[in-house]
Amino acid sequence: MTYISHLECPKCQRSYAPFRPNNTCQCGAPLLVRYDLDDMGRGISRREIKKRPPGMWRYREFLPVAREENIVSLGEGSTPMLTAGRLGKALGLEHLQIKDEGLNPTGTFKSRGASCGISRCKELGIGKIAMPTAGHAGGAWSCYAARAGIEAFIAMPVDAERVAMLECVLSGAKTWLVRGLISDAGRMISKAAAKYEWFDVATLKEPYRIEGKKTMGLEIAEDFDWGAPDVVIYPTGGGVGLIGIWKAYQELIQMGWVKDKPPKLVAVQAEGCMPIVRAYQEGKESSEFHTGAKTFAGGIRVPKALGDFLVLQAIRETGGTAVAVSDEEIMEGVKLTALTEGMFICPEGGAAIAAARRLVQTGYIQPEDKVVILNTGAGIKYPDIVRPELPVLNPDEEIVL
Amino acid sequence: MTYISHLECPKCQRSYAPFRPNNTCQCGAPLLVRYDLDDMGRGISRREIKKRPPGMWRYREFLPVAREENIVSLGEGSTPMLTAGRLGKALGLEHLQIKDEGLNPTGTFKSRGASCGISRCKELGIGKIAMPTAGHAGGAWSCYAARAGIEAFIAMPVDAERVAMLECVLSGAKTWLVRGLISDAGRMISKAAAKYEWFDVATLKEPYRIEGKKTMGLEIAEDFDWGAPDVVIYPTGGGVGLIGIWKAYQELIQMGWVKDKPPKLVAVQAEGCMPIVRAYQEGKESSEFHTGAKTFAGGIRVPKALGDFLVLQAIRETGGTAVAVSDEEIMEGVKLTALTEGMFICPEGGAAIAAARRLVQTGYIQPEDKVVILNTGAGIKYPDIVRPELPVLNPDEEIVL
Repeated sequence: MTYISHLECPKCQRSYAPFRPNNTCQCGAPLLVRYDLDDMGRGISRREIKKRPPGMWRYREFLPVAREENIVSLGEGSTPMLTAGRLGKALGLEHLQIKDEGLNPTGTFKSRGASCGISRCKELGIGKIAMPTAGHAGGAWSCYAARAGIEAFIAMPVDAERVAMLECVLSGAKTWLVRGLISDAGRMISKAAAKYEWFDVATLKEPYRIEGKKTMGLEIAEDFDWGAPDVVIYPTGGGVGLIGIWKAYQELIQMGWVKDKPPKLVAVQAEGCMPIVRAYQEGKESSEFHTGAKTFAGGIRVPKALGDFLVLQAIRETGGTAVAVSDEEIMEGVKLTALTEGMFICPEGGAAIAAARRLVQTGYIQPEDKVVILNTGAGIKYPDIVRPELPVLNPDEEIVL
Repeated sequence: MTYISHLECPKCQRSYAPFRPNNTCQCGAPLLVRYDLDDMGRGISRREIKKRPPGMWRYREFLPVAREENIVSLGEGSTPMLTAGRLGKALGLEHLQIKDEGLNPTGTFKSRGASCGISRCKELGIGKIAMPTAGHAGGAWSCYAARAGIEAFIAMPVDAERVAMLECVLSGAKTWLVRGLISDAGRMISKAAAKYEWFDVATLKEPYRIEGKKTMGLEIAEDFDWGAPDVVIYPTGGGVGLIGIWKAYQELIQMGWVKDKPPKLVAVQAEGCMPIVRAYQEGKESSEFHTGAKTFAGGIRVPKALGDFLVLQAIRETGGTAVAVSDEEIMEGVKLTALTEGMFICPEGGAAIAAARRLVQTGYIQPEDKVVILNTGAGIKYPDIVRPELPVLNPDEEIVL
């Protein structure tokens, strides 16, 4: 059921057989999964996929799992592509759509990567995984690990979202909080993983998470009738989703399933943590560690991403761009989306809304462009995002306007 | 696109034309939507439905909205039916599946009722709605109202989930908290609705919410290849979901699409608020107000439901039963499901898990029965459900097992 051929280093082009647990390349770069796309094109058709039930495993030929019984699923994928007419009008866009990744198990797009990554762990006989996380990836991987009967060891910043901590704890993961950033947690997990022989599944330290995220790109293409919108706006922390969407379009174009150009990919970061935006602006191929990273949007509080060079390449090759927005604009984006469309999106999604507004103002996006914004998670995972002051009545009182 | 014929009172059999806003029957009972099922059977086939994209509006012929442009959708429905082998084993069940309604917009099954109800409000030209809520229904209806450009007025208990309050406030609903129960909020909303001319959309006070919930039953039938599991276990507050599933099977059987008997419907309540369980045990046709209602599962803290007689009828006609479980058992159900399956379910879902265990022990459910448990919402909407004590490390410390 899979057409995986090998793993390839996008930096030094070394290749690896896909039959053993793999982390990064010898050169330190992340590995990408390669498929026999000619063979895949003969084995599966767009028509066949259209007939299948919803969920990201409808694209199983594009995924690296060989045996169906190894698929660990909680119903992820096939998230709605929602037309946002009223919000679009407020932003100056005629064709705005939001792909709502909040409708995934564990409430974020992280479940796609976890479903694919944990399935491969199961297939390769891995019994213990470890990862640092900003929060929601840890929650997702813990839940999928529990479903697979795999032990999980997770470290996250002490100020990560409490709901993500709950997901880890309830699903039985051994969990530590770190007085620091995800980069600190990463260093600590890496050391402990070596000592205790845990498989390190930190962002891009194993090759399969990105394949799960790739399904967002496959779905966007299918939603556009095997075509592409003009622009995809993506909140970028580790950047795996953006790389995944780019990879989806590369594969679909190579197979001849998509004739359009890939969408322009826009990476959005917070002004308080904008390593990729800075590297993009300075014309660099990789980013510098952003010291003193600070934004309330925890998912994009990533001071240095292992896949930064791939994100920058994806942006440049598709004619995209990179934008940083302030925390105030992010909050404004969340509020505007709820008020106009009834969608309670996450702060990272709010950042993408803010970026859309900015890019219309600068003229990068034209009012008639087809724009897709990725809302990477449900706002309901952020119970403290605002503290409303509501009137409180006794049962014998009357409601008065 | 709809085959709606009229509205019918299940108590006194009066009928009403469906072209105006309707609340309850003159006799005070809730109204049910009736369709021309013969005509529907000629107009749509199971095969046709199978081809359609996911979401509850794939069953639009079974729903009361006449014009497609009136559909207000956030991508609700087509939630996953997940096999729960490890949990089933722990409970003594060989064929356990969980239908995870947490994968809806706003994180609960309430979005189905809101999508259908608000769509009909739009179709009938209603500009202002009002409702009492335990929390999540209010959040859902507020969000869908915002998407439709309809004003919402909501009252809920002061101890309702904070996340549901956020949904109301962010989507622009005017929101009040009440030092009391949903029944107190209901009385206050009813009075204010009359005064300010708001359309009262309290549970079963309008006929369309139940039609949205009915899609859960349509999906279960389709998941079982237009058949039925042996038992469906449902946490029951207002009971609309249970009535909806029953109504779905009645319609499908009448159309000849389903040849099986409907599933045995099991209503689950909390020991601290069990009006329907008590009425069932006492052989009564309707329930008594449960004074001093108390359970941490807010969605089933409903002391008296308007549709109680329909719930009791559904249970009895399908050979189902009614069970009350303790708050400790509910919490145990939540924890066991997360640990064994990686699913973070809501307390109400936990109650259904606890009921399953109980009914296996009493012999009502046989180990080989096909059992479907409805998890009505995502656990991530309950950030305070447990307060984990986690180890906190400084960045220079080491992770030690």
